[in-house]
Amino acid sequence: MKDLISVNQIDEQKFYQIYELYKDYRDRYKNGETKFTDLRGYSILLPFFENSTRTRTSFELAGKILGADTINISGSSSSVKKGETLYDTIKTLEAMQADFIVIRHYMSGAAHIVANKVKSRVINAGDGTHEHPSQALLDAITILEHKGKIEGLKIAIIGDILHSRVARSDIKLLHMLGAEITLCGPQTMLPRHLEQFEVDYITTDVEDALKDKDVAIFLRIQLERQKKVFFSTLNEYSIKYGLNQVRVNLLKEDALIMHPGPVNRGVEIQSELVYGDRSVILDQVESGLFTRMAIYKFLLNQ
Amino acid sequence: MKDLISVNQIDEQKFYQIYELYKDYRDRYKNGETKFTDLRGYSILLPFFENSTRTRTSFELAGKILGADTINISGSSSSVKKGETLYDTIKTLEAMQADFIVIRHYMSGAAHIVANKVKSRVINAGDGTHEHPSQALLDAITILEHKGKIEGLKIAIIGDILHSRVARSDIKLLHMLGAEITLCGPQTMLPRHLEQFEVDYITTDVEDALKDKDVAIFLRIQLERQKKVFFSTLNEYSIKYGLNQVRVNLLKEDALIMHPGPVNRGVEIQSELVYGDRSVILDQVESGLFTRMAIYKFLLNQ
Amino acid sequence: MKDLISVNQIDEQKFYQIYELYKDYRDRYKNGETKFTDLRGYSILLPFFENSTRTRTSFELAGKILGADTINISGSSSSVKKGETLYDTIKTLEAMQADFIVIRHYMSGAAHIVANKVKSRVINAGDGTHEHPSQALLDAITILEHKGKIEGLKIAIIGDILHSRVARSDIKLLHMLGAEITLCGPQTMLPRHLEQFEVDYITTDVEDALKDKDVAIFLRIQLERQKKVFFSTLNEYSIKYGLNQVRVNLLKEDALIMHPGPVNRGVEIQSELVYGDRSVILDQVESGLFTRMAIYKFLLNQ
Repeated sequence: MKDLISVNQIDEQKFYQIYELYKDYRDRYKNGETKFTDLRGYSILLPFFENSTRTRTSFELAGKILGADTINISGSSSSVKKGETLYDTIKTLEAMQADFIVIRHYMSGAAHIVANKVKSRVINAGDGTHEHPSQALLDAITILEHKGKIEGLKIAIIGDILHSRVARSDIKLLHMLGAEITLCGPQTMLPRHLEQFEVDYITTDVEDALKDKDVAIFLRIQLERQKKVFFSTLNEYSIKYGLNQVRVNLLKEDALIMHPGPVNRGVEIQSELVYGDRSVILDQVESGLFTRMAIYKFLLNQ
Repeated sequence: MKDLISVNQIDEQKFYQIYELYKDYRDRYKNGETKFTDLRGYSILLPFFENSTRTRTSFELAGKILGADTINISGSSSSVKKGETLYDTIKTLEAMQADFIVIRHYMSGAAHIVANKVKSRVINAGDGTHEHPSQALLDAITILEHKGKIEGLKIAIIGDILHSRVARSDIKLLHMLGAEITLCGPQTMLPRHLEQFEVDYITTDVEDALKDKDVAIFLRIQLERQKKVFFSTLNEYSIKYGLNQVRVNLLKEDALIMHPGPVNRGVEIQSELVYGDRSVILDQVESGLFTRMAIYKFLLNQ
Repeated sequence: MKDLISVNQIDEQKFYQIYELYKDYRDRYKNGETKFTDLRGYSILLPFFENSTRTRTSFELAGKILGADTINISGSSSSVKKGETLYDTIKTLEAMQADFIVIRHYMSGAAHIVANKVKSRVINAGDGTHEHPSQALLDAITILEHKGKIEGLKIAIIGDILHSRVARSDIKLLHMLGAEITLCGPQTMLPRHLEQFEVDYITTDVEDALKDKDVAIFLRIQLERQKKVFFSTLNEYSIKYGLNQVRVNLLKEDALIMHPGPVNRGVEIQSELVYGDRSVILDQVESGLFTRMAIYKFLLNQ
């Protein structure tokens, strides 16, 4: 396993290996060991062809903490502007002796296409509407940290399932780890061919979806991509699918509220609930840092 | 004192503590000790929501020289584009275990708003028309280095006082340190409520302002923001308020000419005078590097 | 020799000194020594006023591998937007104690203009249509690595000679090292005053140019700059000057095919040939990393 492209590559054993690395780094960091040498002499190149704060910053900082040299390459200031193909960009980075290439791309399958063509370890930091495996790993780890297990948990995923790479990765990983998955969203945002998802229940009724769940994962409405479509119905979306004080009580008392961020306050989640008692949204960010440290180390160990 | 948001936080004792740290770093650096470990294992995240070269580069380089891991986050390639609130951006950076958050924002009060909400140390690198405390500290230190004292010095600040965060911070800090402050600018660029500034004299006549001063600080006309307003009168501004060879002779013979940069050559200062005999504009940049190293260390010591 | 502005500064002795440094770094890196301390405590500031992936990444990574602190400054997010002159930008970087300034600028002569005004070592990473000396060095080194010599080699350079800084630097350096240079391109892309180039043969016929050559260097058609001019004739350019399977056989059997990248696939070089048997395009990228490490070290040794 040279690369991390899809959660399909992660079986239970590998997940718990990554989790062990995560715990080791987190514990040592929290105990004041905030600088490591595990990746000293390694280079991490981060070509990001879509805007990002948390994923890029998290991968970059995780690499730096481990002692690696990191280089940002943004789609807007690079040779991509000159019409270079993705394949040529990645072959070029490989030729610069890149040990890791952390790539985000607007095209589904982008990371997979390049990974087999280079010796560098490739990490998919989000490819189109396809996958976002590090997000799924950090989501699973956040749940595990709070619930002590994943097996048997009832998890609802609410929002634009159809266009969400987070949903695709979360569903597969959490299902593999034994969770019972409910999907919920407007009919137009649910996939047409449901059989491809190994989910247990699908509904367009958010209250039906939330009832007695251990975890509720709200997906981001991609306002910046779909402004035209949603503009007139944003308020309607919030009314029909947004988390509010009433709906929060449908969840189990100790349920977790999650969101990959950035939250559209008042749309997916009512503003007061974003960092409310049950929200672990910031825990996801924190877990993300140590999860990415663990991912680097896991790939290095292979 | 977890954060540096405003020069109001700096009393005389704190100023001289920062100055001692400055001198220590500068001397050691000049003696060939150009890499330190004081901030090893610390992370500095620099969300900049406005363009900047000197302030961002100075804070980033100062952090690196001290051994910290630094991460740039620009407003144009980040989640801000996705409509995330400033508060959520900063909470996210805190969750990534940011030790320092160096923030520049176009909104007055931005740094203050977030500082109390996070454990990370927050440094205001300029917020709207409000404050730019590290600039005031480096200005005061540059003056101190050349004049040996600040108390009793006669200092003129010339330009768009109303919209200048540099002016706001400089006035307060230099006044606190005992300087006598004269403000000068076109009536439309002077604050309406003068009593809020503890200045000694205000005039719209630049020659009156410069006469017998120890220090003249010229402010940048924000061409990029106010092109419409100034286009027809830029030449007029230069004629009425710009520093030229005649006006320079009104100052004391050993006076200092300062400017936070970047200078609009021929507008605030005639081109030949920008790096002329009395100009300490590049000394300000140099002092800026060591001042920012001192600021990091000062906050760490608290 | 404080700066590297033009290949005119490189004589045979200096070239081979740089080559020795290159080999030393490459060998040690390939043997697992991937982190050095040669530039520890040195700062490298990289103001890039034109988009770039490979040159900027290569210089940045080379600096980091050597242990330097590196800072990116892009034209689009810096004070240049505020109208600052290049001279003032560079004086500011010098005042920040920059040990190296690696500059790319759209204006021919930009690097030369600033180099003499600052104590920092200035490296020209491409200035307008003038020079790109590090590219010429890595090209010469790539040839030397594959051919064991440069003297006496027959080298064709094909494309837009007139607007190419790569061509200008390659011609001078490879000629100085004893190669026999043939230039080829459409009449409109050949310089009018040929005597200034010390070349052996000039032709508008690509097949004439390629015949019996040891090396063929294809230049990038700057689509992004000249879209209007070439749009209707891009296919024609490819037919008349592009490398295809037939033309490749005109070269010597062990000839090298080179391109500074990024390649416009199907324009300068037919897609299948880009990484074909004789192509050393990715070797150029790899050599580029170690060449830039050698350049830093060479300037440091002066």
